[in-house]
Amino acid sequence: MRFIQEFRIPEIIFGRGSIEQVGYCAQRVGAEKVFLVTDPGILKAGWIEAALPFLKREGIHFEIWQELTENPKDFEVEQATRAYLDSQCDAIVAIGGGSPIDVAKAVAVMATHPGTIHDYEGVDKITNPLPPMIMVPSTAGSGADITQFAVIVDSQRSVKMTIVSKSLVPDISITDPLILTTKDPQLTANTGMDVLAHAIEAYVSLAANFLTDSYSLTAIRLISSYLGKSVSSKTNLEAKDAMAKASLLAAIAASNALIGAVHALAHQVGGRFNLPHGMANAILLPHVMEYNFPACIERLADIGEALGQSVDGSNLRQRAKGAIEAVRTLAREVDIAENFTRAGCLYSEEAMNLLSANAAKDACLITNPRDAGIKDIREIFSRAFSRSSVKEGEVHGPQAKDNE
Amino acid sequence: MRFIQEFRIPEIIFGRGSIEQVGYCAQRVGAEKVFLVTDPGILKAGWIEAALPFLKREGIHFEIWQELTENPKDFEVEQATRAYLDSQCDAIVAIGGGSPIDVAKAVAVMATHPGTIHDYEGVDKITNPLPPMIMVPSTAGSGADITQFAVIVDSQRSVKMTIVSKSLVPDISITDPLILTTKDPQLTANTGMDVLAHAIEAYVSLAANFLTDSYSLTAIRLISSYLGKSVSSKTNLEAKDAMAKASLLAAIAASNALIGAVHALAHQVGGRFNLPHGMANAILLPHVMEYNFPACIERLADIGEALGQSVDGSNLRQRAKGAIEAVRTLAREVDIAENFTRAGCLYSEEAMNLLSANAAKDACLITNPRDAGIKDIREIFSRAFSRSSVKEGEVHGPQAKDNE
Repeated sequence: MRFIQEFRIPEIIFGRGSIEQVGYCAQRVGAEKVFLVTDPGILKAGWIEAALPFLKREGIHFEIWQELTENPKDFEVEQATRAYLDSQCDAIVAIGGGSPIDVAKAVAVMATHPGTIHDYEGVDKITNPLPPMIMVPSTAGSGADITQFAVIVDSQRSVKMTIVSKSLVPDISITDPLILTTKDPQLTANTGMDVLAHAIEAYVSLAANFLTDSYSLTAIRLISSYLGKSVSSKTNLEAKDAMAKASLLAAIAASNALIGAVHALAHQVGGRFNLPHGMANAILLPHVMEYNFPACIERLADIGEALGQSVDGSNLRQRAKGAIEAVRTLAREVDIAENFTRAGCLYSEEAMNLLSANAAKDACLITNPRDAGIKDIREIFSRAFSRSSVKEGEVHGPQAKDNE
Repeated sequence: MRFIQEFRIPEIIFGRGSIEQVGYCAQRVGAEKVFLVTDPGILKAGWIEAALPFLKREGIHFEIWQELTENPKDFEVEQATRAYLDSQCDAIVAIGGGSPIDVAKAVAVMATHPGTIHDYEGVDKITNPLPPMIMVPSTAGSGADITQFAVIVDSQRSVKMTIVSKSLVPDISITDPLILTTKDPQLTANTGMDVLAHAIEAYVSLAANFLTDSYSLTAIRLISSYLGKSVSSKTNLEAKDAMAKASLLAAIAASNALIGAVHALAHQVGGRFNLPHGMANAILLPHVMEYNFPACIERLADIGEALGQSVDGSNLRQRAKGAIEAVRTLAREVDIAENFTRAGCLYSEEAMNLLSANAAKDACLITNPRDAGIKDIREIFSRAFSRSSVKEGEVHGPQAKDNE
């Protein structure tokens, strides 16, 4: 046990139709005019139109901002911050996936701190109070509506910067599972595997604790039962509810137990190749679980059980190995690319060297259960690109067949 | 599933020695001078002396207030509020059990609202923002450091008033298990059984949900394993850690899933006879579980399992019955009085009528899994006083032998 543990989450509102609470919540945090960050997809799906009457009902003014892209960039944060300050808003609402929520958090920082967003990369650099933040996630998901993280791309270096601070935990998170009904299957698959990565990394994290463990395992059970159903049908509300719950539970766990090597490596691939974050995590997850194996066999066995591996007649190591196979099977079932090459990322020695060096500096590595140096990380990347030479007797799962 | 669920908890800091965070937390919430509410027992045990240097280190001024009794009274709240306003404090810190924490919450209300504390009895009567609140619980425990409840005695009516509002959720809860080492065995037993009542009532509550269920069961498992050890030894730190965790988990569950008939009835007995709240809950708990039995057999069976009832070869009903027996056994093991008569409460028909009528109006009944009218409540009270005539074939546990 660490000497002192800290646990902080937003106020959570959950339920079908709960987007109607957005105006009341804005009023409760004292807002008069909110900066409403979203993305073109959410606008097109009609969710902003759906939300505005609830703001108007409470007399809340608003400024809508949608100038951002997947894996949002530093210059997008600058533009958004200018717009926030010019519009004289006093609170921030995001309706959307991880990208608008991360931009909303970064605007909150830059509206109240000097310099540029680069100055706040790392842990606990935020010192001033932030404006109130209300997040309405649309993806189930990034978990950014819950976590103390914001991830912004440094466009010069093509690297993701992770900003970690308890101040980035929003005031209120409103999860309305009905919003999930307009997601396409690929996004549902990517973000669902992202949730699985949060839950698994939180559960094997060195900072896992009595407040996060049961949430990690409950999230894994829900994903195991409902991700396939949610990807298969836009209108299966039981599956949307379940995945929305899993996203919340996994994000609470990940924000407070912190995460590990999957995210440390995924941030680099995402920054370099503009790959969707969930897909990057999904491809890396089984390879990192194999790497972490010697450090957390018991914990992986629990994960195996939560993923439906039979306990009868199997020993601890079998269940732990079974967890890795179950993750691979689930990823295949929801049509995640088998490796980075198939996902369209171009392998090069130069890229591998740079990604590995940067990953080794990522804050997420601190709580990974097994130390990982540049050489280890390079080997994990090689496997995830399906370029590793598999040693005799070792089996690294289905992707081993793809070796060139 | 209810249409919309809400979940709100304080920022939680947990760990041996974490009382040292009190000054830093006060500074973080913007305090310059804190109103420090405590009780004579905590003062005598040296915990205020221990905390003051951490306030001074951050330049935080303070006013210490200890004028309160167990089951704190309305007039004590009035005195404390005057002292708060006179001393020009701008934040409230409580170090102690449920009594000083409830007084601290009531002072926060009365310092910012007109009228008397009686005006705020019931649900959602608090409309103005409250001063920042930091709670350091000493009992593991009342859970008041986490919950949206405050309970104050109306001294004219000898009735406990329950005040329910999300605004009463403190800003920060600091749990230092070392503080538990100065509790005497009787207080450890009473407050430990209170934690069990929170966990069980939250788990069978009609408002139980995906964020509260796993915390309820984890708390029950910890209590089953560690309450006896904690009562047996002041210095068993493993047991103190476990009971402190159980208290947090059960309070998170109870505040957000709400509670039930045990608390609705206990509030009346506590108000009338000045009985310790935990002891009142402990005596009522098995009787209310028996009453609730037809409404929640599956849930009681889960509780039975968490209390160590064997799953093999027992059916659902047996495990559910086993849960009730396990609660009785645990209460006996930690020397809780078997019934209210043995606890020194004087039975009278007049008292029973009044207590039952008042309990039927308590807000906690709303989420009890089985409707309970005045007649039902009177029967539960009779059994808890060990005055009920047991019908043939019915077994109500060991206390049945005590019938006159």
